[in-house]
Amino acid sequence: MTETINIMLAGPRGKMGSEALNMIEGTDHFQLVGCVDRKHQGKTIKEIDGLPDIDAPIYSDAQEAFDRLNADVFIDLTNPESGYVHTKLALNHHIRPVIGTSGFSEDQLDELKQLSSDKQTGIVIAPNFAIGAVLMMRFSQMAAKYFDSVEIIEKHHDEKLDAPSGTAVKTAQLIKEVRDSHQQGHPDEQESLPGARGANVDGMHIHSVRLPGYIAQQEVIFGQSGQTLTINHNSTDRKSFMSGVKFAVEQVMTIDHFVYGLENLME
Amino acid sequence: MTETINIMLAGPRGKMGSEALNMIEGTDHFQLVGCVDRKHQGKTIKEIDGLPDIDAPIYSDAQEAFDRLNADVFIDLTNPESGYVHTKLALNHHIRPVIGTSGFSEDQLDELKQLSSDKQTGIVIAPNFAIGAVLMMRFSQMAAKYFDSVEIIEKHHDEKLDAPSGTAVKTAQLIKEVRDSHQQGHPDEQESLPGARGANVDGMHIHSVRLPGYIAQQEVIFGQSGQTLTINHNSTDRKSFMSGVKFAVEQVMTIDHFVYGLENLME
Amino acid sequence: MTETINIMLAGPRGKMGSEALNMIEGTDHFQLVGCVDRKHQGKTIKEIDGLPDIDAPIYSDAQEAFDRLNADVFIDLTNPESGYVHTKLALNHHIRPVIGTSGFSEDQLDELKQLSSDKQTGIVIAPNFAIGAVLMMRFSQMAAKYFDSVEIIEKHHDEKLDAPSGTAVKTAQLIKEVRDSHQQGHPDEQESLPGARGANVDGMHIHSVRLPGYIAQQEVIFGQSGQTLTINHNSTDRKSFMSGVKFAVEQVMTIDHFVYGLENLME
Amino acid sequence: MTETINIMLAGPRGKMGSEALNMIEGTDHFQLVGCVDRKHQGKTIKEIDGLPDIDAPIYSDAQEAFDRLNADVFIDLTNPESGYVHTKLALNHHIRPVIGTSGFSEDQLDELKQLSSDKQTGIVIAPNFAIGAVLMMRFSQMAAKYFDSVEIIEKHHDEKLDAPSGTAVKTAQLIKEVRDSHQQGHPDEQESLPGARGANVDGMHIHSVRLPGYIAQQEVIFGQSGQTLTINHNSTDRKSFMSGVKFAVEQVMTIDHFVYGLENLME
Repeated sequence: MTETINIMLAGPRGKMGSEALNMIEGTDHFQLVGCVDRKHQGKTIKEIDGLPDIDAPIYSDAQEAFDRLNADVFIDLTNPESGYVHTKLALNHHIRPVIGTSGFSEDQLDELKQLSSDKQTGIVIAPNFAIGAVLMMRFSQMAAKYFDSVEIIEKHHDEKLDAPSGTAVKTAQLIKEVRDSHQQGHPDEQESLPGARGANVDGMHIHSVRLPGYIAQQEVIFGQSGQTLTINHNSTDRKSFMSGVKFAVEQVMTIDHFVYGLENLME
Repeated sequence: MTETINIMLAGPRGKMGSEALNMIEGTDHFQLVGCVDRKHQGKTIKEIDGLPDIDAPIYSDAQEAFDRLNADVFIDLTNPESGYVHTKLALNHHIRPVIGTSGFSEDQLDELKQLSSDKQTGIVIAPNFAIGAVLMMRFSQMAAKYFDSVEIIEKHHDEKLDAPSGTAVKTAQLIKEVRDSHQQGHPDEQESLPGARGANVDGMHIHSVRLPGYIAQQEVIFGQSGQTLTINHNSTDRKSFMSGVKFAVEQVMTIDHFVYGLENLME
Repeated sequence: MTETINIMLAGPRGKMGSEALNMIEGTDHFQLVGCVDRKHQGKTIKEIDGLPDIDAPIYSDAQEAFDRLNADVFIDLTNPESGYVHTKLALNHHIRPVIGTSGFSEDQLDELKQLSSDKQTGIVIAPNFAIGAVLMMRFSQMAAKYFDSVEIIEKHHDEKLDAPSGTAVKTAQLIKEVRDSHQQGHPDEQESLPGARGANVDGMHIHSVRLPGYIAQQEVIFGQSGQTLTINHNSTDRKSFMSGVKFAVEQVMTIDHFVYGLENLME
Repeated sequence: MTETINIMLAGPRGKMGSEALNMIEGTDHFQLVGCVDRKHQGKTIKEIDGLPDIDAPIYSDAQEAFDRLNADVFIDLTNPESGYVHTKLALNHHIRPVIGTSGFSEDQLDELKQLSSDKQTGIVIAPNFAIGAVLMMRFSQMAAKYFDSVEIIEKHHDEKLDAPSGTAVKTAQLIKEVRDSHQQGHPDEQESLPGARGANVDGMHIHSVRLPGYIAQQEVIFGQSGQTLTINHNSTDRKSFMSGVKFAVEQVMTIDHFVYGLENLME
């Protein structure tokens, strides 16, 4: 792990991007060799207000960046549209992509998988870089084999518009894969006030709390006669994603194929 | 508090009753002088299988019990019907009643209040003897003056048929008394799965979890920009009621009027 | 509460100060009339980089500020030294001070109390503006009358050097005031690893967790046979102090005397 | 899983034993064929006061029981001394043992392992039958690969004499196996009150709460910049062990070797 990994980054000025710059700068064996940014062609990162003091060139033309820079890993923190174009360029240049988006279509994923195979170049696409959240979902799926009953409570700030959260629904779906379909709770239970028992995903109940003061939290509670087992992930800052990005960069160096989801990089 | 309090108990063989006998026996300044029980006329408590070794007589005729026994406090742990008759007998004998039921009608409560006043005899009627639950509700009402947003999560075993719990609804109603009516959460929030946001009591959301492994738990969560304040009561055993009964017995000795709810005995 | 309150602020560029500016700007019935700042004499707030768009003059000479500005309330978010000088100036000008520091000496507090009385001008000094924390301590003191056993767990980021936290120790001291001194836990309990049972304040145990990912959290757990009652305050952002500042500003308008601690403004 | 498993049980009158009888009776594909009990030779289970209505013979002589009964699995819920004798008898009769004790010596374990191998008969020895606790430890070990910092809080009733709990120490040891040894917290952190930071196991801090109202609870908290991941196991009743016993009985039917710990039966 002590050999230096040379990194290209697309999207250095976004919230995630600037955190990624800090993470790269703070990691001894990571080296930023350049960035792709639609603005600031010809400048260096350290010349941009608010970005860390790194002497790496910025290219507004992605093609040019991939032609000129000599990188091991390409991190994309832009958007699905640009990310898709960048990712193909990276694979074609045998630079391993680490991509944080859930926005690619099935067709796009298939194409990238094929291209990774053709080029024998590793790629990691991660819809969620929060390692704690990924572990929460993985542990939930494991626990579901031994506990018949589970409910999910997710708590977010009250600016969040949708309920339940995508993570809560995904957790329920992962659990559903490993258990026999069944309704939970007493068969004769009654709601005296509608909604009290939450949303129902294949018998599992999901509850969404929306309060100022919360950022993003989820607890998955397994119950059985005489015991409960609870797995709780609490996210307080987007810095939490950076340990996942770092992990993905290190892992993509060890593979030559397509991986979707950090959970598939874990032992 | 070191002067002995002489106690009569109705309902010694019920679950609550037998816990009360243990509590009385374990309290130095409490003395059981006799019991009312529809069975076992003429026996003593220690002669009944499963009850503690107390040499106190049992009367099946309540009138006779009140005529013969010299008590300071009368505890009723039977049912609303018998309890109502017993309570009037107690007040008429100037014996202070401590009654644990939520089953009296408004008319019955009014009548007992008048009788307490006529006889200048203190009486405590407590629908909930769990001191922790009473404090939770009281603190919630206090916190609501300083926090605009609150949600309630109550968790019970999956044999419970009704949702939300009576305590959750009562907590919301107590909070409602002290705040301006308003809806919480984002005005544009959407449930992609119905019920996710729980039941709605005047803008407050209530979530009911039903899982084996839980007994009875409630958390009241207040949120505000940058902070949350949570009050959590967890009941694991009906022994929890006995500290409330003990508190009520001690307090009823200090009053000469009608009190409804332990919260009104607290400073 | 709809009459406008005119406010002076000292320390507008500090972290707390700039949050206070946002709070004042976001509150309809608050009006900023001017600031005291050792820099930027003669400018207005909106001319300072990073501060909100408020057209209020800055004075570097506090005496001049108090002479020229017509304010109802003076908020000081500087430091104990400047704060002490400012507070006396404010009282002498019959402007009600709201001061957030725990750094005044007993002598200074006595002097300010006397001056407040002489000038018949209300003043609030609050060592803690987090309303949730103040309520947590208040509820803890109330619950301690009904529960003999309590432990405190406080959780902070791992940059915090001291353990236990000042709030945890203060909470224990407040509880100590209202209960008979006694040791908790089993008399024969043994630590097989030293420190397992935490710090001991008059029989109450305090546990300090230090982990990255936490900001500032404290739970106070009361236990009794069959039940626990937990009060948990979680602070995720210094914005949490602003509801306390706002509350103090509104309350100081209703008093003409010296108050120390937000808890003494609560009903 | 629908083929009936014939079960022998030693220790039917103990707390665990009687729960095991209920579990066997409540499981369709389990059949009790007889019990070993030092009392009640010649009676059947249903003749013993307080035991369920099962018509299975009791033997006080274990040798005789193993000679006469035709069982697939032998469950021992007695004590290490008897358990050791019984287990050897079971293996010699090619009856698969499921043993719940942590009291066997290394020599005894080696001998049983050899005997299992010689007889090609599966055996499960489980020091902890609480599946939730086993999963908590397993998940903790997995999470430790991705989180450098962890603390453990265990909460028990105040009748417990030792601190920290055996489960907490074992959890720390399991984590220690998979991480580089390092101290946590700030290098300059100071305890102003001794014990505040808890016990220290190879840099991990363990905190032991002892309060009435708790039964047995443990939370393992992993922290990282911007996120925490918490795994919490709460045991409220010894019934919680029975799902583990049931799981072990089902699994022991599928193996022909020695397994120590339920975690080694999990996928």
